[in-house]
Amino acid sequence: MKAKALMISLLAFSVATAVWAEGTVKDEPIKPIEAAVVKDPKMVELGKKLYFDPRLSKSGFISCNSCHNLSLGGTDNLQTSIGDKWQQGPINSPTVLNSSMNVAQFWDGRAKDLKEQAGGPIANPGEMAFTHELATKVLDSIPAYKEEFKTVFGKEAIDIGMVTDAIAAFEETLVTPDSKFDQWLKGDDKALDDKELAGYKLFKDSGCVACHNGPAVGGTSFQKMGLVEPYKTDNKAEGLVAVSKQDADRFKFKVPTLRNVEMTYPYFHDGAAKTLEDAVHIMGQIQLGKKFNDEETANIVAFLKTLTGKQPEITLPVMAPSTNDTPRPDPFGKGDAAKVEGADKKS
Amino acid sequence: MKAKALMISLLAFSVATAVWAEGTVKDEPIKPIEAAVVKDPKMVELGKKLYFDPRLSKSGFISCNSCHNLSLGGTDNLQTSIGDKWQQGPINSPTVLNSSMNVAQFWDGRAKDLKEQAGGPIANPGEMAFTHELATKVLDSIPAYKEEFKTVFGKEAIDIGMVTDAIAAFEETLVTPDSKFDQWLKGDDKALDDKELAGYKLFKDSGCVACHNGPAVGGTSFQKMGLVEPYKTDNKAEGLVAVSKQDADRFKFKVPTLRNVEMTYPYFHDGAAKTLEDAVHIMGQIQLGKKFNDEETANIVAFLKTLTGKQPEITLPVMAPSTNDTPRPDPFGKGDAAKVEGADKKS
Repeated sequence: MKAKALMISLLAFSVATAVWAEGTVKDEPIKPIEAAVVKDPKMVELGKKLYFDPRLSKSGFISCNSCHNLSLGGTDNLQTSIGDKWQQGPINSPTVLNSSMNVAQFWDGRAKDLKEQAGGPIANPGEMAFTHELATKVLDSIPAYKEEFKTVFGKEAIDIGMVTDAIAAFEETLVTPDSKFDQWLKGDDKALDDKELAGYKLFKDSGCVACHNGPAVGGTSFQKMGLVEPYKTDNKAEGLVAVSKQDADRFKFKVPTLRNVEMTYPYFHDGAAKTLEDAVHIMGQIQLGKKFNDEETANIVAFLKTLTGKQPEITLPVMAPSTNDTPRPDPFGKGDAAKVEGADKKS
Repeated sequence: MKAKALMISLLAFSVATAVWAEGTVKDEPIKPIEAAVVKDPKMVELGKKLYFDPRLSKSGFISCNSCHNLSLGGTDNLQTSIGDKWQQGPINSPTVLNSSMNVAQFWDGRAKDLKEQAGGPIANPGEMAFTHELATKVLDSIPAYKEEFKTVFGKEAIDIGMVTDAIAAFEETLVTPDSKFDQWLKGDDKALDDKELAGYKLFKDSGCVACHNGPAVGGTSFQKMGLVEPYKTDNKAEGLVAVSKQDADRFKFKVPTLRNVEMTYPYFHDGAAKTLEDAVHIMGQIQLGKKFNDEETANIVAFLKTLTGKQPEITLPVMAPSTNDTPRPDPFGKGDAAKVEGADKKS
């Protein structure tokens, strides 16, 4: 009886251990991304329409998706972005993917959350060049939008707070779980090959992980760009100091996420590093005082590529048409009566 | 026996008639749109990626979808489009929706089909400002694209013909069946209300339907813009004459489709008519010598709005990232080493 009871206990214990082991995530400084939990699907749907709607811009041509393109890893892959009238932006467009995990928004952290960020580009003269007042006026003139806002928010008049709440709700769903690395974290030891594993070990041991950690492999702190050696750049952005006014915060930027980094080139706040190899090499040097050789760089790059997760599956929204009351877009700055020239060009 | 046989025959005849009537489309000059038949789903999928890929433009910012936006009824809702470096386009962007039914492509018909049209904007210096050679070079440098082209076309090297074949295959799926009007055509007599029906009758009786007919309610011929009265415009486009070199073809343009017309404002080749009411009023006057009063205009507009069909449901494609070999986009015209200025602006 005793032997039998003992065997049953041992068996139960093994099963319990196996179950516990299966469910155990490796204890690493990088954590897996969990799938988004959608609390208000109607708000998310409305937010998606707004995210893709270029009528929130002066020209009627630029939407959130223009610079945070969900077909391209959530960014535009340009050194800095193109704004109204083709103005050259001052800083690299961060990816919207997994941005919900950022400690703050923008490279200088001036927006505390996604909601606060969303209103920025709409009214930025170098970007969408519109105003919050005009944006809500446009939306208010479109019955289908009015109805949708009323359903979601229970109010008659549309205000910018509702617009940014909806956009933020949509952006919160833009996470990318199930990367090869997360599969490895969750117990699939075959998910990484030798190069990738070697790259991760180097990433950890060198100290990259001191800043690039957590579920977003970044986004959790502000750090000086050019910690060990100054970072040489023509870019005039000085980061956090713009918000804190503390001299010690000069050239401190929000650590970007490395999730999907193989899709979010070019790199750094100035977008000056064109390739992952460049980025790894420079980071090693200026942040850690390390000169990675070609093999080490290649291994780290191999690891970084394992951080590409499952891209959000988006059904392209179809927006309701403008009405006769909707303020017209003004791309060429001559008001409604813009003349069309150059029709001798091939049309 | 005879009476019974007669009754059975009558019954059978009634049933047959009812079945025949149910399946009968009304004999009208506008025909219903049928759903697209997808012959090569892999080619369509590839075509969709290309359609949404801004790397086919010099700036890396403009894709087919920029000006033929599938969230906005297949056009950009601008009088004329925005091209590379914010150049002002010379002519209104036609909708891609149902464009497969056009007798030719472009307002002047210079491309015979969708395939021929697709290569135009890529290499147009006022539009995407790229070259076919560079576009295929970009695609060729991306392994996932190479693989996809090989699977679809069975060839190693990518050429522009394959690119345009794929884009055309995707565009062929962009039809919009099941509008209220088509439901009416197919036998649902309750699908149109009195105003809409009155509008359609006027559309027919006035002669609009002489040009705007067929499944696309247009697209089947070239007609003079300003048939009865000249059309006053600053736009320099002269239409078909550019292709035929025949003086009689001056100001003849391809009749645009009226499908989804409530979404495809502003109207005419010069985009000068901002509202449907304006468009109907002007058309009546210059093409038919008719002065529609407010009620007639309103009825025709009500009818035109019944031509909005079921919009294609598109899963946003996610494109494979560029590689270290991919030619870099050049939005600001200074080559790869573009300096970033103005970082004192809010970023």
